[in-house]
Amino acid sequence: MIREEVELEGPWLEGARLAQLFAAAAAAGAQARVVALSGDAKRAHVRLAVESNDPGRLDAALLALAPFGVAFTPTDARTAPAERDGILPDDFHATSNFDTFVRLAGRWHAVRAQKMDCAIVVRDGAPTCVKQRLVKRGEAVVLRGGGLRVSPPDLGGGATTFAFMSHDVSSEVNKDAVAGRVAAWMRETRAAGEKIVVVAGPAIVHSGGDGALARLIRGGWVDVLLAGNAFAAHDLEKALMGTSLGVCAKSGKAVDGGSRHHLATINAVNRAGGIVPAVESGLIRDGVMQACVSTATPFVLAGSIRDDGPLLDVIPDVRDAQVAYLEALDGCGLCLMLATALHSIAVGNLLPARVRTVCVDMTESLPTKLANRGTLQAIGVVTDVGYLLERLAARLLGPP
Amino acid sequence: MIREEVELEGPWLEGARLAQLFAAAAAAGAQARVVALSGDAKRAHVRLAVESNDPGRLDAALLALAPFGVAFTPTDARTAPAERDGILPDDFHATSNFDTFVRLAGRWHAVRAQKMDCAIVVRDGAPTCVKQRLVKRGEAVVLRGGGLRVSPPDLGGGATTFAFMSHDVSSEVNKDAVAGRVAAWMRETRAAGEKIVVVAGPAIVHSGGDGALARLIRGGWVDVLLAGNAFAAHDLEKALMGTSLGVCAKSGKAVDGGSRHHLATINAVNRAGGIVPAVESGLIRDGVMQACVSTATPFVLAGSIRDDGPLLDVIPDVRDAQVAYLEALDGCGLCLMLATALHSIAVGNLLPARVRTVCVDMTESLPTKLANRGTLQAIGVVTDVGYLLERLAARLLGPP
Amino acid sequence: MIREEVELEGPWLEGARLAQLFAAAAAAGAQARVVALSGDAKRAHVRLAVESNDPGRLDAALLALAPFGVAFTPTDARTAPAERDGILPDDFHATSNFDTFVRLAGRWHAVRAQKMDCAIVVRDGAPTCVKQRLVKRGEAVVLRGGGLRVSPPDLGGGATTFAFMSHDVSSEVNKDAVAGRVAAWMRETRAAGEKIVVVAGPAIVHSGGDGALARLIRGGWVDVLLAGNAFAAHDLEKALMGTSLGVCAKSGKAVDGGSRHHLATINAVNRAGGIVPAVESGLIRDGVMQACVSTATPFVLAGSIRDDGPLLDVIPDVRDAQVAYLEALDGCGLCLMLATALHSIAVGNLLPARVRTVCVDMTESLPTKLANRGTLQAIGVVTDVGYLLERLAARLLGPP
Amino acid sequence: MIREEVELEGPWLEGARLAQLFAAAAAAGAQARVVALSGDAKRAHVRLAVESNDPGRLDAALLALAPFGVAFTPTDARTAPAERDGILPDDFHATSNFDTFVRLAGRWHAVRAQKMDCAIVVRDGAPTCVKQRLVKRGEAVVLRGGGLRVSPPDLGGGATTFAFMSHDVSSEVNKDAVAGRVAAWMRETRAAGEKIVVVAGPAIVHSGGDGALARLIRGGWVDVLLAGNAFAAHDLEKALMGTSLGVCAKSGKAVDGGSRHHLATINAVNRAGGIVPAVESGLIRDGVMQACVSTATPFVLAGSIRDDGPLLDVIPDVRDAQVAYLEALDGCGLCLMLATALHSIAVGNLLPARVRTVCVDMTESLPTKLANRGTLQAIGVVTDVGYLLERLAARLLGPP
Repeated sequence: MIREEVELEGPWLEGARLAQLFAAAAAAGAQARVVALSGDAKRAHVRLAVESNDPGRLDAALLALAPFGVAFTPTDARTAPAERDGILPDDFHATSNFDTFVRLAGRWHAVRAQKMDCAIVVRDGAPTCVKQRLVKRGEAVVLRGGGLRVSPPDLGGGATTFAFMSHDVSSEVNKDAVAGRVAAWMRETRAAGEKIVVVAGPAIVHSGGDGALARLIRGGWVDVLLAGNAFAAHDLEKALMGTSLGVCAKSGKAVDGGSRHHLATINAVNRAGGIVPAVESGLIRDGVMQACVSTATPFVLAGSIRDDGPLLDVIPDVRDAQVAYLEALDGCGLCLMLATALHSIAVGNLLPARVRTVCVDMTESLPTKLANRGTLQAIGVVTDVGYLLERLAARLLGPP
Repeated sequence: MIREEVELEGPWLEGARLAQLFAAAAAAGAQARVVALSGDAKRAHVRLAVESNDPGRLDAALLALAPFGVAFTPTDARTAPAERDGILPDDFHATSNFDTFVRLAGRWHAVRAQKMDCAIVVRDGAPTCVKQRLVKRGEAVVLRGGGLRVSPPDLGGGATTFAFMSHDVSSEVNKDAVAGRVAAWMRETRAAGEKIVVVAGPAIVHSGGDGALARLIRGGWVDVLLAGNAFAAHDLEKALMGTSLGVCAKSGKAVDGGSRHHLATINAVNRAGGIVPAVESGLIRDGVMQACVSTATPFVLAGSIRDDGPLLDVIPDVRDAQVAYLEALDGCGLCLMLATALHSIAVGNLLPARVRTVCVDMTESLPTKLANRGTLQAIGVVTDVGYLLERLAARLLGPP
Repeated sequence: MIREEVELEGPWLEGARLAQLFAAAAAAGAQARVVALSGDAKRAHVRLAVESNDPGRLDAALLALAPFGVAFTPTDARTAPAERDGILPDDFHATSNFDTFVRLAGRWHAVRAQKMDCAIVVRDGAPTCVKQRLVKRGEAVVLRGGGLRVSPPDLGGGATTFAFMSHDVSSEVNKDAVAGRVAAWMRETRAAGEKIVVVAGPAIVHSGGDGALARLIRGGWVDVLLAGNAFAAHDLEKALMGTSLGVCAKSGKAVDGGSRHHLATINAVNRAGGIVPAVESGLIRDGVMQACVSTATPFVLAGSIRDDGPLLDVIPDVRDAQVAYLEALDGCGLCLMLATALHSIAVGNLLPARVRTVCVDMTESLPTKLANRGTLQAIGVVTDVGYLLERLAARLLGPP
Repeated sequence: MIREEVELEGPWLEGARLAQLFAAAAAAGAQARVVALSGDAKRAHVRLAVESNDPGRLDAALLALAPFGVAFTPTDARTAPAERDGILPDDFHATSNFDTFVRLAGRWHAVRAQKMDCAIVVRDGAPTCVKQRLVKRGEAVVLRGGGLRVSPPDLGGGATTFAFMSHDVSSEVNKDAVAGRVAAWMRETRAAGEKIVVVAGPAIVHSGGDGALARLIRGGWVDVLLAGNAFAAHDLEKALMGTSLGVCAKSGKAVDGGSRHHLATINAVNRAGGIVPAVESGLIRDGVMQACVSTATPFVLAGSIRDDGPLLDVIPDVRDAQVAYLEALDGCGLCLMLATALHSIAVGNLLPARVRTVCVDMTESLPTKLANRGTLQAIGVVTDVGYLLERLAARLLGPP
């Protein structure tokens, strides 16, 4: 639903003017509603919402309201050419992660690949959301001003939306109820034919939540795994050597010489030619990465400056990694961000706000940071990531 | 402004019915506004707000709207006697911290001493907010249902309200801007003749913010100090022995034998007969408590089960302490909650929501807990408490 | 093992002097060890540890070492009378939570009721650890200086101690390994005939860990429950009304009118005469408090200034509550502090350091605060309290 | 000081054996000390430390102790060729961040470029610490086992070391004392001719600490700045548009359209050709980056997958960024890690443990993570980063 609000003053409480306005809007294919109205018979102030599924019909309806004092001139979005590769015209429109529509040559187009902090470029006649550095010299860049409409998702809402404790980023909520809700969303996402994407941090492995995550992958509940070098390295280390960061997964104690385990693991896996051959050759027989390979679940590993190794599968150029994440997120209906600040914020930057997003961490600060950076749709779940993963696995797959 | 909302269906878009309704409300001393209106000429759905400063006039206006289909029968609040001291009738109304009005014998009364989680008892003819355990056998307790009106403060608002970063409980905000805002509120509170109440935790002393707090007290910017035994004991320890929790305030290092310092301090101050004589006799020559005594700024120290000593000034029965806090909060226009979970939540329970409240702590979790417990008006400032105190002192009193 | 260290300089590397010294100590019933020795044949510096289970024998051994240059004069502890109730002589010895021995009239006595931040008073001939305010006028108070020996527990140690991740207060540890360790300690404590004490905060109820805690109580794994009004009130609220803090335990959503639920619960339970009659009458049929009553597991509820109600079972004077906690802790071999800062710190103040203590919270800051306040033995487990409780219940009692 | 410990059993308490052993060690250029000695005349157990500045002399001394039962055969370190670029032999030695010595052809060499999680490769005859992926096929890689000595820094120590509150990662410490200590270290580092390196996160800009950091740079107290795209972009945004993340630095309020500010800033700076030309052309007239450029203070900006833009100055391949950080850290004597998890952990991976390291963040969890990852020397300061920066600037440069 796309909407425009207009404010009008006049003798709105007299006669059937509002009824006539409502009818005129309806005739043009839109719906008018009064959002607020005050005043008296002589002079009333009214705030109107005019809504339609179709931005073209919305234009038509607004034009049809001219006799009622609605001043509206439909305009095309302005564009200007990018002066160089990666350099935008000064007045470029910067996107949010809300669905956006652009009017070009009298027609409205939904923007493709919506995500925040991008430019909108007209490619093949269609307005397309493009990262600044990927805009090519001479491409038509949409400028700020008229000819743009933004349609925020309903984040506050009722049963049909995914609103859920959005003002309760707190550890003080019933985790079983949370797991039930997230499991239901996973089922809905699956039913809708959309992807479930998991963004995973190494604390999953250290804290013992990796078993439940591997179970979910084996059970078919994860479509894409996005992570970094450390997550994969420590998962492989546990599969190969029984430790993560050199700490024994069984005893919880640091193993003598354990600090070299992740390096030895990376060495062995790289020698094998990467994660897929390491699994296929039988070197790696367990864990999350093995679950991905054995179920052909795609994974993308993005490099960071902290990396040891890195594993051959890691994409070391962050620009390439960003593009790979973006492609992997295509079709995502539910994103579970699990105990990683870096990759969660990165993915939040790449997702449209309409995608259900759950951010699990030990403190309120990561969901807060996500929201501060525009990923307003992210629902914070403050708990131990292993707890939620085990609950999800139990609900979706039964007892282990 | 007290309001009631009513929903009506009918041919509201025809003729001048809305104008007539507005006029009828105005004639009765209230203002009607359309909050939402949709539908068509035959059948429209309207949500009306009727508002007045006076709940009696609001009743009159609602009655005057009967010809328009507004079904309203003014009713008195029901009451039932408390069956025993501290035992309420089952159906008692539990208060929020929003301003509340009760209709008794056809007249509306503003509830006295509004605060959350209380009963409303009719005392001396006036509805009065009373803690459950303080209700006396046989007193008339207001029951749930008709005859009650609640008026929430405008927390979201514009320049005239104290809304400020209410959705930005985050450390990632400019602290100088925050200090500027809080200092402005302190000036406004002072100008309005209201009290500035400080709720203080011992971390102020440990982290070195005590000097700035003492300056603010000496400069006349604090009307009441609410704290516990630990805050006072460590402040006095620093004045007497140069340490807090045995850690030297100058070097930041633990002093040999320092763990007995707070006990020795309590012993010395109790021997002197309490904090006031300890200051007046010259035993205590510095610090926050000395600033309170020397400027005759009242303080209340509430006991907790953690207490060593305690100081003679501490109120050991938490029921008495609650009453003493409540009395001290009378007339409060601005409450600064500084680095204490226990006392901040306690004070939040005792404050009406209309009182500006700022909660300073190192993480987002305390403001979140406060909000979860109903102190929705509390603005979270995530910073080192000493930083904010020094900035406030510099803004209000100049460089130290 | 009580020890004294002495430093000596001389020609220690010549002849059999050290062997003779070792033999002299052994003859007197103690063991001497060299802790460090450096230098050359003419002049060496030696640090000796002399150890015994019995402080009297340790004295004898130290005296027997006089020919080797050990200067030691056994002295009685000095005492002075308390000048008034609750007022100590200036030079009083302040206790730590380490086992302490006092020498009186030539004999060493182990201090009774060891805990931190107390005075040692000679009662019935025995040195006794007493809170400052409970010292009576004229009682003999032990002063600082000679005649005192302190025996810190071995916190760093090997398999026979409870050392475990003491430097790893972090969420990044395997929670299953943690649960295994804590469950083993529970079994050992039980086998040793000591008490398992649980200190519980309301977040257990809000986050859904209450079911597992009730299971542990019903299974006989908890000997005493220490909590406050909020924990009990929300547990009873869930039993009576299906919510905690007004939030439905099943759906995780706030229930309409739910903010009065805890008040209504307190009212109903107080009307019944308290928690025990409320359970026995069938009013309360579920939850942690019901589990306590039905298994005759003792509980103590301490008041705080935050309390609504409070429940009749709550002890409102914090001094009385402190004494009641202290009595309940007698014989404690393992203390589980679960998601409560106030009561954990309070209990830490009352426990000797030799008691195994586990502190569970969502962040590192509570274990840090405990350690800063002297409860050095507390092992921090950073996780969702419900997660650990469920794991413990599963390990000790099997699947639910 | 390099040391080796040996344990011996025998009649050590008889005659002058220990004196003879001490003398033999001294004659060979090392110092022997008894670390622990217990037993009796017939059979004693002794733990010896033998120490020298020079590992060759240490070998000689250990050999000289053979008559006393010390079994020691000096061995060269084993090496094996790397089988492929980036693939190590299985048994490779993985480095810590402690100073390490390697024995090759009978001579000890200090390892060059010591840092954790690397291989040691013999390059130009010298053992050199090299990241796994940078090891070339055929290079001689040092293997685990003999011929290696590690010399941990003294982290616990006295006045001559930088030990300081190392067990007090807590917000409850006096921040003025902390600032005093850090300022003293800055002066000492400067006096020693070593570099002061600052690792900076964007929260510095958001929270208002950027002014103090720029002052420190202008005052000559920073030798290298390591950061990421976000830090630089928001600092430049504030210089160009007065906001950070679209929030006005003066009012603390979100500016209309502010979410595009950092993109517009990146666009303008990239159009200018990067940060240096943007400053030199007068586009950027203020802030931290301007301070760097105008004082010729080097900076390195490392890319991450979160980046918008990025700025042309950002190194997008994390492998290159790691190398650039490493070069910039050469000669570092003091590292201040300010409010960034990603870059702090990255730098911790690249620093030898002997470098004084201070980690400032709002919670205990970042210093804990650093320590868990081996950066044991990092001293955690839990405070608002702006607070510490302002205090440092005031101490080193006087009032602003």
